[in-house]
Amino acid sequence: MHAVVLLSGGLDSATTLAIARERGFDCHALSVDYGQRHVSELEAAGRVAVVLGAREHRIVRVDLAGLGGSALTDRSLPVPETPGEGIPGTYVPARNTIMLSLALAWAEVLGAQDLFIGVNAVDYSGYPDCRPEFVAAFERLARLATKAGAEGRSLRVHAPLIALSKAEIIREGLRLGVDYVETVSCYQADGQGRACGRCDSCRLRRAGFEAAGIADPTRYRPL
Amino acid sequence: MHAVVLLSGGLDSATTLAIARERGFDCHALSVDYGQRHVSELEAAGRVAVVLGAREHRIVRVDLAGLGGSALTDRSLPVPETPGEGIPGTYVPARNTIMLSLALAWAEVLGAQDLFIGVNAVDYSGYPDCRPEFVAAFERLARLATKAGAEGRSLRVHAPLIALSKAEIIREGLRLGVDYVETVSCYQADGQGRACGRCDSCRLRRAGFEAAGIADPTRYRPL
Repeated sequence: MHAVVLLSGGLDSATTLAIARERGFDCHALSVDYGQRHVSELEAAGRVAVVLGAREHRIVRVDLAGLGGSALTDRSLPVPETPGEGIPGTYVPARNTIMLSLALAWAEVLGAQDLFIGVNAVDYSGYPDCRPEFVAAFERLARLATKAGAEGRSLRVHAPLIALSKAEIIREGLRLGVDYVETVSCYQADGQGRACGRCDSCRLRRAGFEAAGIADPTRYRPL
Repeated sequence: MHAVVLLSGGLDSATTLAIARERGFDCHALSVDYGQRHVSELEAAGRVAVVLGAREHRIVRVDLAGLGGSALTDRSLPVPETPGEGIPGTYVPARNTIMLSLALAWAEVLGAQDLFIGVNAVDYSGYPDCRPEFVAAFERLARLATKAGAEGRSLRVHAPLIALSKAEIIREGLRLGVDYVETVSCYQADGQGRACGRCDSCRLRRAGFEAAGIADPTRYRPL
């Protein structure tokens, strides 16, 4: 069975790939380069895909920076370094919708009926497109949108991390052999993939290792 | 009121833009360059956006050709020139899902709550993502996917052509002042935007002008 697995190169998507492999899927890893600040994430994705046994890894470029509106793609907006209220400035408009659409396109080409995405609705940043009802609505859309669906084949969107805490995700990944030193979660990692230790994503990740009682393997850059 | 209007540069999307303008929307026209053969369509889109009074026109590039699978993006596959059965080779996997996702991203940045797409389920090529149930499913997804939706604002996906015949679309466009000589529908137009007259899209368009009793203004290339 073939599956398309969205792989950002961060902690969550690496764990998702390991889970998809354990479930017996032949995995086609897809990274989306939407003009984000952290190119080192994409480089990490390539290493993670190889280490975790994906059959292939492709990067699709989407020129989302031209539409503006997010601190992750617009360098004139600051990445928040203290916790705030509501949906933060690092939210990329419609990001998961776009990434799942691209995964769906590739799945149709491959004849794959399974998509994997590492969204999480527990220790997350408050983005609306990380909730279970979003994933269910996309699965429904996918069945209506595609040749496979029109011909009666099923399409499934798997979000195996959706109900796990960050600590549970880390324990599951370690059980499956994920080496988290390979992954980059930071919103403003440097050219060597070293994390800032201060953004939302770094805070959630660090707290996850603490809660799991695991030494944090993240490479932080000097302050 | 602001709206994002998907504008391919073809007959249907030009008519859709004219309808959105008539309904009083301040229109932001979006073209998606997904590596299609017909670059002249994108050039037509720029002219159409200006002529029909869009406030701005942007092109987002998506490297869909790298995923393969369609005669419109893969130059090694032939564009069919005779009518066939089922979903044709010119189907681009998940195209409308991807295009609506990008329109949704821009709408969020702009604070727009209305998207327009020129899909049509009458005189169409049999693509699954042109049906009313697909449009309704995307609207539902959009409300769950976005900050606007999470904050209780409504999002609407308008498909004003969905129940019209090609002849009705043409009559509606002419009433609203669309000059169809500016539009390019052909799947394999040449560098000057001249149509082949033989592909599915050309056949549907020509038959539409005939059924409407209107002289076909399309610029065909010499055989």
